Amino acid sequence: MGPDGSGYSGLVLEKLSSLDIKVGDRVKIHHDGRDFQGILMPRSQVGADPYHLVLKLDNGYNTGIKIDAATIITKSKSSRVKKPKTTETVQKLNPLLPTVLVMSTGGTIASRVDYRTGAVNPALTAQDLYDSVPELQDYANINAQVAMSILSENIRTSDWTKIAKIIAKEIKEGETDGVVIAHGTDTMGYTAAALSFALQNLPVPIAIVGSQRSSDRPSSDASLNLTGATNLVGRTDVAEVMVVMHAQTDDSYLYAHRGSRVRKLHTSRRDAFQSVNSYPLFRIEENEIEELSTPLLRRDPKRVLTVKPQFEELVALVKTYPGIDGKIVDYFVDNGYRGIILEGTGLGHVPDTLQSSLKKAVDSGLVVAMTSQCIHGRVNMDVYRSGVELLEIGVVPCQDMIAETALVKLMWLLANTKTSEQAGTLMYTPLAGEIEVRSEYPQYDADVEMY
Amino acid sequence: MGPDGSGYSGLVLEKLSSLDIKVGDRVKIHHDGRDFQGILMPRSQVGADPYHLVLKLDNGYNTGIKIDAATIITKSKSSRVKKPKTTETVQKLNPLLPTVLVMSTGGTIASRVDYRTGAVNPALTAQDLYDSVPELQDYANINAQVAMSILSENIRTSDWTKIAKIIAKEIKEGETDGVVIAHGTDTMGYTAAALSFALQNLPVPIAIVGSQRSSDRPSSDASLNLTGATNLVGRTDVAEVMVVMHAQTDDSYLYAHRGSRVRKLHTSRRDAFQSVNSYPLFRIEENEIEELSTPLLRRDPKRVLTVKPQFEELVALVKTYPGIDGKIVDYFVDNGYRGIILEGTGLGHVPDTLQSSLKKAVDSGLVVAMTSQCIHGRVNMDVYRSGVELLEIGVVPCQDMIAETALVKLMWLLANTKTSEQAGTLMYTPLAGEIEVRSEYPQYDADVEMY
Repeated sequence: MGPDGSGYSGLVLEKLSSLDIKVGDRVKIHHDGRDFQGILMPRSQVGADPYHLVLKLDNGYNTGIKIDAATIITKSKSSRVKKPKTTETVQKLNPLLPTVLVMSTGGTIASRVDYRTGAVNPALTAQDLYDSVPELQDYANINAQVAMSILSENIRTSDWTKIAKIIAKEIKEGETDGVVIAHGTDTMGYTAAALSFALQNLPVPIAIVGSQRSSDRPSSDASLNLTGATNLVGRTDVAEVMVVMHAQTDDSYLYAHRGSRVRKLHTSRRDAFQSVNSYPLFRIEENEIEELSTPLLRRDPKRVLTVKPQFEELVALVKTYPGIDGKIVDYFVDNGYRGIILEGTGLGHVPDTLQSSLKKAVDSGLVVAMTSQCIHGRVNMDVYRSGVELLEIGVVPCQDMIAETALVKLMWLLANTKTSEQAGTLMYTPLAGEIEVRSEYPQYDADVEMY
Repeated sequence: MGPDGSGYSGLVLEKLSSLDIKVGDRVKIHHDGRDFQGILMPRSQVGADPYHLVLKLDNGYNTGIKIDAATIITKSKSSRVKKPKTTETVQKLNPLLPTVLVMSTGGTIASRVDYRTGAVNPALTAQDLYDSVPELQDYANINAQVAMSILSENIRTSDWTKIAKIIAKEIKEGETDGVVIAHGTDTMGYTAAALSFALQNLPVPIAIVGSQRSSDRPSSDASLNLTGATNLVGRTDVAEVMVVMHAQTDDSYLYAHRGSRVRKLHTSRRDAFQSVNSYPLFRIEENEIEELSTPLLRRDPKRVLTVKPQFEELVALVKTYPGIDGKIVDYFVDNGYRGIILEGTGLGHVPDTLQSSLKKAVDSGLVVAMTSQCIHGRVNMDVYRSGVELLEIGVVPCQDMIAETALVKLMWLLANTKTSEQAGTLMYTPLAGEIEVRSEYPQYDADVEMY
């Protein structure tokens, strides 16, 4: 960072200082025959050179502009940053529309960029929602609640408990036809899995929704995801936990993925979320909602929700790699952990150097279960000796369950079963569509590959 | 497992015992109006029921057959299992063909299933190769060597060193126009990355090749991958480390992926290997080889190979998740580790509970570098406060490098640089095509998204 905290140094800092321009000011730059206008942003990248400054343009994008001695920088007088209207309009209830609980937890979808600092603030009120996405009123009567305001990388198991309890309370009061949860995308898949297990026998649908671009950017996916999710949970007869996000990089349509089967598979693209080892449940295009896979449960207001919101945090996820030391497994055993999800290689293998530590872990009462770092496909530990030996030790194969869901499921099972043995057995029993148990050896079918 | 070690119990074991049928015997089964013939396989799946037996059919597939009291089982007199010919033919050198070193390390591609035990044995000699894939002779004069015979989940950094040294020796002797390495698929991506760094300034190409089905199965991809790789390294003018595998689930064509950019992305499919954040280098279809991306190096027999085969094993890969405890990071610091690759969420974030431990790790001299568990896309730690804070601590962003390559690269750097600081800097410097460094802020382009 530069001496003034702006991140600028050298020529750029000199020029800015001489003109009394600070981060957050609106500036005009004339360089090499071209003009740029926007808000001066701070610079924090490691190894930032002293020749570029960064503007947030009016179209919402940041851009870097190379500065030399000939560049002309001028400070604009007025800020033209659009501010959201915060009128005091109270939405009138429409008796013909469903009632949807929209809960915000933080994350990009519930954030606005503070142009003065460049920071993203995760704060959204009911009023903010109406202001930013007024078309929500066309789909439902909205009951908006702020559950928490954090970036999703910081969400912990206790937050899953809190979210599950709020939803359960609202559903049990009987006024809610569906739930939309605005959530950061970083750990949205984990939370979706957590709610899939914590809220059993759902009478109404729950859609978790996020955005890959903050709501105040013209390229934001927030509005479409939010209206699509609201439309889905208000109208369709499904009663599952889902994730609703863009299916394409453009705004053409959305997918609703099963909460126990979805993963963020790209750092930045709008279609980052994908169903893994399964198909999406719904395709949502404007007002058309197409059912792609059969839901596990259909909407039924009379069904009684079962709430089991507790999670055991002493469960580790260990991705294996060449050279991994068995002592890492010992660490978890020695520190009171109750379970380990392995992310092994291929069909569910680990280096043989881990074997004795894994045996010790199982013998000490930990549930040790196997997923694959391949992401796609099913573990099958019967094919090679190394897999068979792990089965013999007592490592539980997680079949086609993704690692993140396996972690959450084991955290949930260990908090909600009487014995670890029971938890181990339930790990390979489907509870929320997270596993497809293929009969061990399917009936003869020449076209079916066995693994 | 059943009382006799075959894995069978109950009715099935009774029937088999009364007929004196053992695992490995050829049997005929008449059940429910249908006939099945094949070799009786052992059964080892956890919780196997007592009603099915498993046959390896003549087409190579295993199948489960439900047995009841009415099922007729008969033992066949002769085994019709095809055995490979092991003639003593010595291949004549063809002066018009290139010379290719084919090295086996083990894995499915260098394995045969032992029908008596069902185990896969990773052992392949030069003679085995000619026997199983005689068409290799049409592409090259083969110099075959067995480097080791292990399943790739057990390969360690010392094996990478051994493989690199053998290849270097052969290349330096000047008789080798290209190298093919038969390798298990589980850690093939890791080894490909390791050789990409260990063997610099390559004069000739290296292709690592595996198979997802063992060579004696009719559905095996071994033969096509092996001939495709041999053809590629003998004929094309590239000089890089690559992985050559099926591009499709059928046998239509292969891809050659850059060794530092490839990942096993499916547990069982033949097209499991994919280039991540980059395009494949070549498309190989029968005798047509199409260059898809520009190689970093072209073949040049006069170029002098630089060999740096050492790796530091005290580097950890840590995938983060909700609830992860900072003490896990402390463990590595306290146990003499020299580096940690984080597989964070989204654009490169970790739970804030890890921050103080990460700061301690960096302050203790460990290189801590960030990749994303999203697999696809680039980390960008400038967008959110949580990323910026990690940069300020000194966490190195790995840009668009995949986690497995980042791990191998840091293992290699820490064994081949004088200081950890130097290793940290080189982590974000491209050395083997593993990173594309996008200029920090690209020149103005309305179509380019900044993250």
